[in-house]
Amino acid sequence: MIKISEYTVRRLSTYRRILEELLADRIDVVSSAQLAELSGTNPAQVRKDLSYFGNFGKRGSGYRVEVLCQRIRSILGIEGTWRVVLVGAGNLGTALFSYKDFSRHGFQIVAILDSDPEKTGQTWDGVEVSPVKDAERVVRKTKAEVAIVSTPAVSAQSVVDRLVAAGIRGVLNFAPCKLEVPAQVELRNVNITIELEGLSFAMRSADEAAK
Amino acid sequence: MIKISEYTVRRLSTYRRILEELLADRIDVVSSAQLAELSGTNPAQVRKDLSYFGNFGKRGSGYRVEVLCQRIRSILGIEGTWRVVLVGAGNLGTALFSYKDFSRHGFQIVAILDSDPEKTGQTWDGVEVSPVKDAERVVRKTKAEVAIVSTPAVSAQSVVDRLVAAGIRGVLNFAPCKLEVPAQVELRNVNITIELEGLSFAMRSADEAAK
Repeated sequence: MIKISEYTVRRLSTYRRILEELLADRIDVVSSAQLAELSGTNPAQVRKDLSYFGNFGKRGSGYRVEVLCQRIRSILGIEGTWRVVLVGAGNLGTALFSYKDFSRHGFQIVAILDSDPEKTGQTWDGVEVSPVKDAERVVRKTKAEVAIVSTPAVSAQSVVDRLVAAGIRGVLNFAPCKLEVPAQVELRNVNITIELEGLSFAMRSADEAAK
Repeated sequence: MIKISEYTVRRLSTYRRILEELLADRIDVVSSAQLAELSGTNPAQVRKDLSYFGNFGKRGSGYRVEVLCQRIRSILGIEGTWRVVLVGAGNLGTALFSYKDFSRHGFQIVAILDSDPEKTGQTWDGVEVSPVKDAERVVRKTKAEVAIVSTPAVSAQSVVDRLVAAGIRGVLNFAPCKLEVPAQVELRNVNITIELEGLSFAMRSADEAAK
């Protein structure tokens, strides 16, 4: 099996999004030059990225938008369904639960964990909020494969350790901390706080420089 | 004025988060070695990062947690308030509106823009949803300085162009696309879709490899 870099996968995500916009605009064929321009890269890069996965385009005639889009969705693994446990039902967890793009990407929330006794026992759109102490039982019962972590930084690692022991294979971490997971578990981080503070710092620095 | 790298600013964010956890645990003093371990870096890096901003620690006695935390908050510019216009009141916009960490970081949503006539005219927690066509007027009236963008990819650039023309200085972009802004406007991106698809791809690849 070829090893694909994270950067290639990121570009595939971008191509897929552009191809779906082209599909919505009823455009049937796209050249590597057009796809490169729309995604902010160059045609050689587009051809190289796509060549990893077989021969899609014909020289001079471009790529069939629908075929290529379907193929990239399948490469990205967003054709199927991933069963997700949402960990942390606080402000961020609530916001993420209502974020419909998870299910559009095949990430279906089947369980929610929280340590607040006021929240456990609630049902959100048919999904039960269970206590963190039941993490192992919940993962086994719901067959969850992925954890979306939106706990405070201080409790994230301990609950992730338990989820991993219970069989979780992928973690999308929104908690503002670095998590350690075994090599066979996939981890991606989304750190909204760091981007906010970076933005704030840059604007404040510009103010200082203007003084 | 010294130029501080984005990586340094990211580490400052991490130090601040750790210092606030230490404060909550009533710990008064921290050494660069402890701070390095908790933030996943090394003591020399901690001392170097902090030395940009003056002389905080005393050799052998460590840093005063409260003083250092306060100072980093001030460096990051999260002491004051940034007035924010939220652009896009769809699924993601709704989720972000309910995300309390924005205000905790001084980002206060003072206006909401959307192009859906069913949404415009609504009031969310006292904040009016205005039509995108009124973008300039809304930015001027509310004195918004920052835009949080959660529109579809296809409409993000055109609305950002109008907001920038109206005086917006910072953009936090959640739309799954690359935005162009003038050099004096600060831009940070949070791309949840790309992280989701990266996670999905990696898990699918592991499945294939195991076959």
